[in-house]
Amino acid sequence: MKKKNITFNDIAEYTHFSKTTISRYFNDPDSLTLENQEIIAKALADLDYRENKVARILANGNTEFIGIIIPNLFLHYYAEMLNQILATYETFGYKFLVFVGNGQEETERRYIDELLSYKIEGLIILTHTIPSNELAELNIPIVTIEREDKYVCSVNTDNYMGGYQATSLLANHDCDVIIHINYINSPANPDVPAYGRVQGFLDFCKEHHIKHELILKEMGNTYESIKNHLTDILNVITEKYSGLKKGLFISNDTQANILVNLIIRKYGKLPDDFFLVGFDNSPISQEAVISISTIGQQIDKLAYEAIKLLVEQMAERKKRKPKPLEKPIHKVITPILFRRETTEKY
Amino acid sequence: MKKKNITFNDIAEYTHFSKTTISRYFNDPDSLTLENQEIIAKALADLDYRENKVARILANGNTEFIGIIIPNLFLHYYAEMLNQILATYETFGYKFLVFVGNGQEETERRYIDELLSYKIEGLIILTHTIPSNELAELNIPIVTIEREDKYVCSVNTDNYMGGYQATSLLANHDCDVIIHINYINSPANPDVPAYGRVQGFLDFCKEHHIKHELILKEMGNTYESIKNHLTDILNVITEKYSGLKKGLFISNDTQANILVNLIIRKYGKLPDDFFLVGFDNSPISQEAVISISTIGQQIDKLAYEAIKLLVEQMAERKKRKPKPLEKPIHKVITPILFRRETTEKY
Repeated sequence: MKKKNITFNDIAEYTHFSKTTISRYFNDPDSLTLENQEIIAKALADLDYRENKVARILANGNTEFIGIIIPNLFLHYYAEMLNQILATYETFGYKFLVFVGNGQEETERRYIDELLSYKIEGLIILTHTIPSNELAELNIPIVTIEREDKYVCSVNTDNYMGGYQATSLLANHDCDVIIHINYINSPANPDVPAYGRVQGFLDFCKEHHIKHELILKEMGNTYESIKNHLTDILNVITEKYSGLKKGLFISNDTQANILVNLIIRKYGKLPDDFFLVGFDNSPISQEAVISISTIGQQIDKLAYEAIKLLVEQMAERKKRKPKPLEKPIHKVITPILFRRETTEKY
Repeated sequence: MKKKNITFNDIAEYTHFSKTTISRYFNDPDSLTLENQEIIAKALADLDYRENKVARILANGNTEFIGIIIPNLFLHYYAEMLNQILATYETFGYKFLVFVGNGQEETERRYIDELLSYKIEGLIILTHTIPSNELAELNIPIVTIEREDKYVCSVNTDNYMGGYQATSLLANHDCDVIIHINYINSPANPDVPAYGRVQGFLDFCKEHHIKHELILKEMGNTYESIKNHLTDILNVITEKYSGLKKGLFISNDTQANILVNLIIRKYGKLPDDFFLVGFDNSPISQEAVISISTIGQQIDKLAYEAIKLLVEQMAERKKRKPKPLEKPIHKVITPILFRRETTEKY
C-alpha cells in the first residue's frame, strides 16, 4: 500500500540526505552534484512522489502560468490560434489559464484581476476591448496578437503585405475594377493591425492606377446578418460594374465563402467576370464548393513567436537586475498566398 | 504612491480588527457579522488590496482549478464545447487549465500528472485515448463528454435518438434506400457514445422495413483524404442505387458539407433523388451552398451539465464525511432536428 503524501522528510530519510538538500533539489537543482541529483530523482520514482506545484510556487514564486484572453472560439482563426498557443506547452512548459472575452471592458478587467490573483507570469491578449496603455500599466509581461498594440509588445501578421498580395493577384488576372470588402467599421483606425489590409489594397491600386472601390461594412456576427449584407453588396456591384471584370478581395474566408455561395446560387457557377480572394486560409477556404484563393496567416508562427517573446520578458524579470524594455517590441509574420479555384478557375 | 503588497497586518491596522478576524473574512466570511464584512470589504477597496489566491490555496486547499483535456480545436464541435465550458466561469467561478491532446496515451498521462501537480479540483476529459477504468483510479472528480465512460461520470448527447430522428426524416421523404456514413472505424464498439447514432439508424430501418446500408469508414483528418473517400462512396452509391430515391445520413456536418459540394460539382444542384442529413448543427451546416438538415447537439447544455455534475462531486469532497458515488452518473442531453434545404429542397 502506497503512502498517500510523500514529504521532504520521507525523501530525506530514504536518501540519507538532509531536508535542506532535498529542498535545494527542487528549487536550485544545479547547486547539487549530478550524482546526487540522480540519487534523489531515483528516490522520487521509488517513493512515487507526486510534486505539489502549489507548494513549490510558494517556495520560488514561479507559477509557470500564462493567462490568455481570447475574443471567441467561434471564428476558426481564434480556435486555431488557441490550439497553437496551447501546443507551445511542449516547447516552453508554461500552463495556460484561459478566458473567453465578451467585448465588455468591465468583464475583461475582472478576468485580468482573477488571472493576476493567481500570480500568472505573463499575459496574452487577443481581445480588442482594453486599450494598450491600460494593459501596459498592469506591469507584467504582455504580448498582444492582431489588436491595437501601441504601448505593449505584439506579434502580428504583415497585413499590409497580405492586402498588397491579394490585390496584386487580382490585378494579374486583368480585373477592370478591384473591390475590397472589409468588416472594419472605422475607415481610419490605423492602430488596428487588420487595417493594414486596407492600406495594402489602396496603395497597390493607386500605384498601378487601377479602378477600385473600398467597402467598409460592420456586418454583425450571425450568418443571417452577414448573408443579408453580402447579398446587397453583390447586387450593387453586379449592376454598378456590369460588363467589367470584377476582382473581389474579402477580408476573411468565412465571409468569402458566404459570398461565393451567393454567387453560385445566383449563376450556378463562378461567372468568368468574377475573381475572388479571401484572407486567413481557414479550412472553409479549401472545403468551399469552389476552393477559395486566400492570404494565409501563419497561425503556428504567430502563436510560437508570441509565447517566445513573452517567455523572454518573463525570464528577464527573474534576473537579479532586470532591464525593463525601452519600448515595446512588435514582431511581424509574413503571410502566404494560396492560389485556388476562385482565381485560377476550374 | 500605492504600497505594493498589502498584507493582513495592513488590513488589521486599517480596520482595527485582529489579524485572525481578517483571516476569517477570507476563509469563512459568514462567521463574521454582515456589518464587519462590509467594513473589511471597504478597507480592501481603500487599500487597493489584490488578493493572492496562491496564498489562499495554502490556507484552505481549494485551488478552484478544473483541468480540461480536449482532442483538438480544429473541429468546430470541440472549439464550441471549450467555448461553452469556459463560459461556465460566470456561473460557477472555476478557472480552467486547458491542454490539447494528441491521441498519444503517454502524452495525455503527462498532461494529467501536470494538472494534478497543480491540485486541480476536478477534470473534464473529451479525448478518447485513456480508458475510463484508468481515469477512475485517479481518484478525483471526473466528467467525460462523448467518449467511453463506463467507470466515470459523463454527459452525452442522446445519440441513439439523434440517429433515429435523422433516419425518420429521410424515411418521411419516401427514400427507397437509406445509407448511413459514419467515421467510426469499429462496427461494434457500443462503449463509444457516438455508436448510438448507428444503432438508432439500424433500429429505425429494421422496425420500418426500409432498405438500408451502413458504411463505416475511417476517413482520416485532412480535407484531401475525406474528399477522396467521399468521392469513392458517392460513385459507388450513385451506381448501386441508380433510379432509387437515396437518403444519406452523414455522422458529422464537416463531412456532410464536403459531400454536398461533391454532389453540386457533379450535378450543378442537389438532384431530386438525393436527400441528406448531417449531425452536430455546426455553422457550416447553415453556411453551406445548400443549407444542410442536421441533428443539433445542444453544446451549451452539454457543457453546463458537465460542469454542474463535476461541481457537485467537488462539493461532496469538501464535506466532513464525503459520500463517494455508488456508481458513475451518466447524463443524457436531447438532440434537436433542424430541417433545411438538403431535405426540404429549395
